[in-house]
Amino acid sequence: MGRFSIFTAAMTEKLQEYKTFLDAAVEEHVFQEEPIELFEPINYILALRGKRLRPIITLMACDLFSNDYHVALKPALAMEFFHNFTLMHDDIMDSATMRRGKSTVHRKFGVNAAILSGDALLIKSYQYFEDVPEHFFKPLVVLFSETGMLICKGQQMDMNFESRSDVTEEEYMEMIFYKTGALTAGAFKIGALLGNASAEDAEHMYEFGKNLGIAFQLKDDLLDVYGDKAAVGKKIAGDILENKKTILYIEAMKLANEQQKDELLFWYSKSTDNVDKIYAVTAIFDKLDVDKKISQKIEKYTILAKKSLENVSGNVKSKDLLYSFSDYLIGRTS
Amino acid sequence: MGRFSIFTAAMTEKLQEYKTFLDAAVEEHVFQEEPIELFEPINYILALRGKRLRPIITLMACDLFSNDYHVALKPALAMEFFHNFTLMHDDIMDSATMRRGKSTVHRKFGVNAAILSGDALLIKSYQYFEDVPEHFFKPLVVLFSETGMLICKGQQMDMNFESRSDVTEEEYMEMIFYKTGALTAGAFKIGALLGNASAEDAEHMYEFGKNLGIAFQLKDDLLDVYGDKAAVGKKIAGDILENKKTILYIEAMKLANEQQKDELLFWYSKSTDNVDKIYAVTAIFDKLDVDKKISQKIEKYTILAKKSLENVSGNVKSKDLLYSFSDYLIGRTS
Repeated sequence: MGRFSIFTAAMTEKLQEYKTFLDAAVEEHVFQEEPIELFEPINYILALRGKRLRPIITLMACDLFSNDYHVALKPALAMEFFHNFTLMHDDIMDSATMRRGKSTVHRKFGVNAAILSGDALLIKSYQYFEDVPEHFFKPLVVLFSETGMLICKGQQMDMNFESRSDVTEEEYMEMIFYKTGALTAGAFKIGALLGNASAEDAEHMYEFGKNLGIAFQLKDDLLDVYGDKAAVGKKIAGDILENKKTILYIEAMKLANEQQKDELLFWYSKSTDNVDKIYAVTAIFDKLDVDKKISQKIEKYTILAKKSLENVSGNVKSKDLLYSFSDYLIGRTS
Repeated sequence: MGRFSIFTAAMTEKLQEYKTFLDAAVEEHVFQEEPIELFEPINYILALRGKRLRPIITLMACDLFSNDYHVALKPALAMEFFHNFTLMHDDIMDSATMRRGKSTVHRKFGVNAAILSGDALLIKSYQYFEDVPEHFFKPLVVLFSETGMLICKGQQMDMNFESRSDVTEEEYMEMIFYKTGALTAGAFKIGALLGNASAEDAEHMYEFGKNLGIAFQLKDDLLDVYGDKAAVGKKIAGDILENKKTILYIEAMKLANEQQKDELLFWYSKSTDNVDKIYAVTAIFDKLDVDKKISQKIEKYTILAKKSLENVSGNVKSKDLLYSFSDYLIGRTS
């Protein structure tokens, strides 16, 4: 979160406060238990940091409703742990070699380690709810499990889509809600509940996070092709090379003429690392203004998200940080 | 559990009652959610059945203390789900091809499916605690997570041992408590708690399950080499072929003369499916009476287990079924 230009100085300071608080906590929670082989891969992936958006979200949501967001620390860490558990396992499934500019866990420690340490991290994330005030334990764990199931379903749908060329936009949107939106939604709702939000407001926060998460994933798809390559820390146009049916592909197939369709189908049936594939596919995307079309969709989901935020009616602090945070997420270039 | 010879007719009937109740429940809980690719591997492994010892344990423990063991059904299923989640992931790590006489999940559906469906099954198992009486939810989920962490640690230790030839008996016993004893212990304690056992009695049941689980695993090690091959449904002497440092190997290394030690080290450093390896290693085991020595250890842990059962002091039904169940577990030939 290096670019805070759309944030006021006070907001930047607030975000930095969350980040510092979280970073210190993650560092403090470096796992030193035995056997170290189980926890080394966990400490490795957590040390890669990333944006830590999900735990920040939980703190932010709690802070909106309450005067002490510190109560949300461990559940915020649970969000981060859970997210990293999914990365460890998804990277195996996707045969990904790089993550945040470094080797993926399975490449560095082996597939077995990535499986088992991922399992341990998932269980750890459940354990990080154990210290919340008693009456919150069950609703939070229930929500957490529900979120986890959606994410598994989303990952499965994503894998199913790989062997299909006829994925509809509706199916795709459902998949990214499950795979990405659900965790953002859960992170906001968990924070809100811990801040003693009403059930209604917590639900608004869930919807806010859901649509923001969808916009975030669409932006991610866009950045894979149109992003600032160096900063992404992943393979350039990796989605194209891996024949991923992202929203760009789906939109392009909708707009393409017969010849373009054939060309897309040709490239997306090939398994190659040849850069020609990137040029050819991107050229079609460019011709069809896919970039602009997807940006409009991102805008649409961001507006939906903001409407849910508007609907939060309880006694809250300024919502400005969350509005700016939304703008930041969709404005990022990497 | 086809051999009930050490059970009275009434006990056999009782066990059959649990089994029928469980089987019907598992069948009723066949997952029909979308996407089917996520749930097919789960339904597949659950349909392989196995002995369903862990869920039976939970029902049995609840029944000991209460008049309605039906309240323990879903947590019992959680035990079975969790166990099958570990099988799905462990079989990948162990490159196992057969499980209960059929293809392992990763061999039938692929590694990715076995990873992701395993994850989903772990989360499902948490969800199966959601319907327990409110005040039980937190203690049970906390115990369940703790158990899960121990099992991950045990699996890691087990993998670590593969590349070591100097595993001590103490280390080995700790590993099998984590990997096997913890789940048996947890299954007994969860059942006892749901049967409204006192905290003290629940702890006795935990200890009972722990030592019984250890005895069970030692017996498993023994059966790998000295069991009824056809009925095991696994590779014959698979542990020897995979250079697993089981209790048989550890005991043999302790008793072996220099020449036998060298021979064992020679074979356990070789990666081969050659049957000569099985003959040679088994010949040394036979010469050193390893069979008898391990049987004595199994006896020792069974006695320890029974002592914990004796210590259960609350108002309970007859403990006879549990005593016989212990004898059954260590008396089995497959």
